[in-house]
Amino acid sequence: MTAVRNVLFVMCDQLRRDFVSCYGGSPVETPNIDRLAARGVRFDNAFVQAGVCGPARMSFYTGRYVNSHGATWNRVPLSASEWTLGDYLRVAGRTAALAGKSHVLPDRQALTRFGIELESERAAMLREGGFFVVDRFDGHTPPGPESGYADWLRTRGYDSADPWSDFVISALDGHRVVSGWNMRNAHLPSRVEEAHSETAYMTDLALDWIRAQASTPWVLHLSYVKPHWPYLAPAPFHKLYRRKAIGPILRGPQDGTADEHPVVRAYREHDECVSFAREDVVRHVRPAYMGLIAQVDYHLGRVLDALESMGRLRDTLIVFTSDHGEFSGDRGLGEKELLYDEIVRVPLIVMDPDARADATRGKADARFVEGIDVVPTIIEALEIPGSPHRVEGRSLLPLLRGEVPTQWREAVFSELDYSFRRARRVLGHGVRDCRAVMVRTGEWKYIHWEGFRPQLFDLAADPHEQIDLGADPRFETIRMGMREWLFDWLATSKRRTTVDDALVEARTDAHRAHGVHIGIW
Amino acid sequence: MTAVRNVLFVMCDQLRRDFVSCYGGSPVETPNIDRLAARGVRFDNAFVQAGVCGPARMSFYTGRYVNSHGATWNRVPLSASEWTLGDYLRVAGRTAALAGKSHVLPDRQALTRFGIELESERAAMLREGGFFVVDRFDGHTPPGPESGYADWLRTRGYDSADPWSDFVISALDGHRVVSGWNMRNAHLPSRVEEAHSETAYMTDLALDWIRAQASTPWVLHLSYVKPHWPYLAPAPFHKLYRRKAIGPILRGPQDGTADEHPVVRAYREHDECVSFAREDVVRHVRPAYMGLIAQVDYHLGRVLDALESMGRLRDTLIVFTSDHGEFSGDRGLGEKELLYDEIVRVPLIVMDPDARADATRGKADARFVEGIDVVPTIIEALEIPGSPHRVEGRSLLPLLRGEVPTQWREAVFSELDYSFRRARRVLGHGVRDCRAVMVRTGEWKYIHWEGFRPQLFDLAADPHEQIDLGADPRFETIRMGMREWLFDWLATSKRRTTVDDALVEARTDAHRAHGVHIGIW
Repeated sequence: MTAVRNVLFVMCDQLRRDFVSCYGGSPVETPNIDRLAARGVRFDNAFVQAGVCGPARMSFYTGRYVNSHGATWNRVPLSASEWTLGDYLRVAGRTAALAGKSHVLPDRQALTRFGIELESERAAMLREGGFFVVDRFDGHTPPGPESGYADWLRTRGYDSADPWSDFVISALDGHRVVSGWNMRNAHLPSRVEEAHSETAYMTDLALDWIRAQASTPWVLHLSYVKPHWPYLAPAPFHKLYRRKAIGPILRGPQDGTADEHPVVRAYREHDECVSFAREDVVRHVRPAYMGLIAQVDYHLGRVLDALESMGRLRDTLIVFTSDHGEFSGDRGLGEKELLYDEIVRVPLIVMDPDARADATRGKADARFVEGIDVVPTIIEALEIPGSPHRVEGRSLLPLLRGEVPTQWREAVFSELDYSFRRARRVLGHGVRDCRAVMVRTGEWKYIHWEGFRPQLFDLAADPHEQIDLGADPRFETIRMGMREWLFDWLATSKRRTTVDDALVEARTDAHRAHGVHIGIW
Repeated sequence: MTAVRNVLFVMCDQLRRDFVSCYGGSPVETPNIDRLAARGVRFDNAFVQAGVCGPARMSFYTGRYVNSHGATWNRVPLSASEWTLGDYLRVAGRTAALAGKSHVLPDRQALTRFGIELESERAAMLREGGFFVVDRFDGHTPPGPESGYADWLRTRGYDSADPWSDFVISALDGHRVVSGWNMRNAHLPSRVEEAHSETAYMTDLALDWIRAQASTPWVLHLSYVKPHWPYLAPAPFHKLYRRKAIGPILRGPQDGTADEHPVVRAYREHDECVSFAREDVVRHVRPAYMGLIAQVDYHLGRVLDALESMGRLRDTLIVFTSDHGEFSGDRGLGEKELLYDEIVRVPLIVMDPDARADATRGKADARFVEGIDVVPTIIEALEIPGSPHRVEGRSLLPLLRGEVPTQWREAVFSELDYSFRRARRVLGHGVRDCRAVMVRTGEWKYIHWEGFRPQLFDLAADPHEQIDLGADPRFETIRMGMREWLFDWLATSKRRTTVDDALVEARTDAHRAHGVHIGIW
């Protein structure tokens, strides 16, 4: 039996589950993701805790729901009090390294209050969400000083103060340089060679770093910024799916109608929804998105090959997932955020090298799993003590190793805080009144919206969430039951995080031992 | 018009609302509390956020519900990320001083993680919950190094390594020294002179400190450890109410019966409930409790006299309250914790020196107010900017100044985590499964208990909460409505605390200005 010595936690950004071929029905071929699935377990019902990068990732990194860690939106700092994967590993003398995107923003206000210099050595861990930074690049803005990408590009001949803007997300239309921000240019190849693209760069870095570890055990978060927008792929991936089948474009009978949910309707005013509501835009952009997926798959193949040649597939736990999905014009919507399955149901594949997992290799597991399960899975695999007083996820190791855990969860939860979005102004809401919480069982999805009627979908009869039953009087009993799920979830979220369970147990009914005598005659 | 320059926030420990004479029906005379009420507003429906010191105080000091600050029990450290009164004042260059009890425990784990030495200057603020410590004494254990009380006692002739144990909570029974821990000794006077008692000591210190501030504006939390147990009063207060009327002893038809709530029944096995279930014990102990109240009242009188002579009643906002109540044998129960009105409904009097408050002087206000309202009241009175993204309480200034605030709250909330108590073991519950949340409107009190049926009381028909309707099928609709209150409360608690509302407003729909273009054609 080979114990887990290393962990490779691969995250894509905005990769839809049904655009991964092992999940079935994908218009994109992803032979390398499929190869990983053949060696591990493909979770068919994996859900993220938010439909947007920041909060979803903070849940991945803390093992806690958004309602618990509080970083409800992109660039909302993760509270300095939240423990992340890196903290749990550090207690055991291990380190969580990062190559790529984390989207962590430092809690500057807390650092100031604690008298800690932001640039100090001590602050590094708090600044980077517990990660040791090999290279950090969050994507979709020019890489900052935490990344060597800009310099690396310049040494390869991309002569610019901002080679990312001028080459990576730019294209040539004839002799004219055009921007990848404009989706009309999605058919053109990026001005970087494929080998110099974001995905290639980060893969190279990760492999170099892994090789440099030699026989030292390691934990690496390889976090790709793709297939997230800007939708511009390098050649040859830019044309791989041009004029090919792009999969169905889902349209619902309620799209944009008066009986559609008010928040969804407000979202339709966002630029990305205005654009993606046009079928010609979808047909133009999806091939680029698909090409970017194929490119990520190609580089995952390089990673798997390298690990195999190093003998590391034998002792490395590999987690592959995405922070959320993407609408790509389904429902006439663009991008993400709203809590439909295209967004919150993600690919999640875990390859456990331990012999105890041999029986589940290549299988699919339909049980409900969540992004918050990654931290407890990693710490259990490395035999590091868990922190059940804080972590709200559950280790997936029992599922991987064919055990039958008692009382596995029967519902998953995801959240949205759209305070930062134009929809809030469209609806005239205050900055603290824009919360939604989803509970999804195998049969029903219920979304509580602050200040609005709920959404309800009958997933058995309507798996594509076409008919919103949130206001249908026939489903009042169902809605009440789903609301009870949410009540219990809210009422049991983990708040008492400054003492662990062992301490509570030791202190139970222990006042007499400390010389405090209450109410004795 | 005189602006508020100073704040005196007086807290008693375990003072019952109906043992304060201005609230009516009290068996104790409290002329000085009444005198304060005559100059300010007496809140008739003031509720604390927990029925035990630690969590209730952390709510007073943070302005947040227990479910938000997470310090659910005594000696559970307040998270280093929580802002307290002291933090809010510090931003404006002010300081919150403490004379007495705070019950704050430092979040040592966080300080270690942040690389901060517990004893460092920088840690002082975090160690003490934001307070500048004039003298800190939490009561009911020998005073530690944060208090000068033990030394002070020794200089006054109490010759002992532990003068608190040997004198303050000891008595002479004939020539034999007996302990105040044993309630059988409650009729005896403490071995300290009244002028050397805890209440006298802290009052002296507070007045000296106030005098020393001269013309510098100040904020002082004068926090008495009394009338909390041990039930031993110094002469002459020990015998003030001996053989006098002690008020009714409330007994209910369901006390200890099979249809009583399981958690309440489990509490009956605690020492203090076994003792207080005996009427002879109640009759023996209550006079000492009442004497301790009369003593606190006497010293409040000294404070008011001193402030008056210094001219400080003209520019000092005074808040007088208690962290929770006490059963004192009502319902056959002892001490506190459970969410009956004897425990969670407390005295709260606020005297605002501002001329705009003249019209409300001497009046009672029946609106629902909570312990979490004290922080926003103080910061508004001092004209310090509030932090509505964190603080969950509301300033009481509009009520004091005769304004009619829109949408004042119609319910109050309080919580219990009995994980640390013997009742948990009696019930066989785990350390994370012992939570209760109360919502109380003018008409109903509903308590959600994790793993048990709820409690429900019809306060109009049954103001003393004698008949628990939590399992009565006739009240299912009421219970559902009350559960909705709780749902909304849980779903709107303030989680996004690392960014303020102004930042959210400024960043709303602002990605284009930062060069990020989403979904444009």
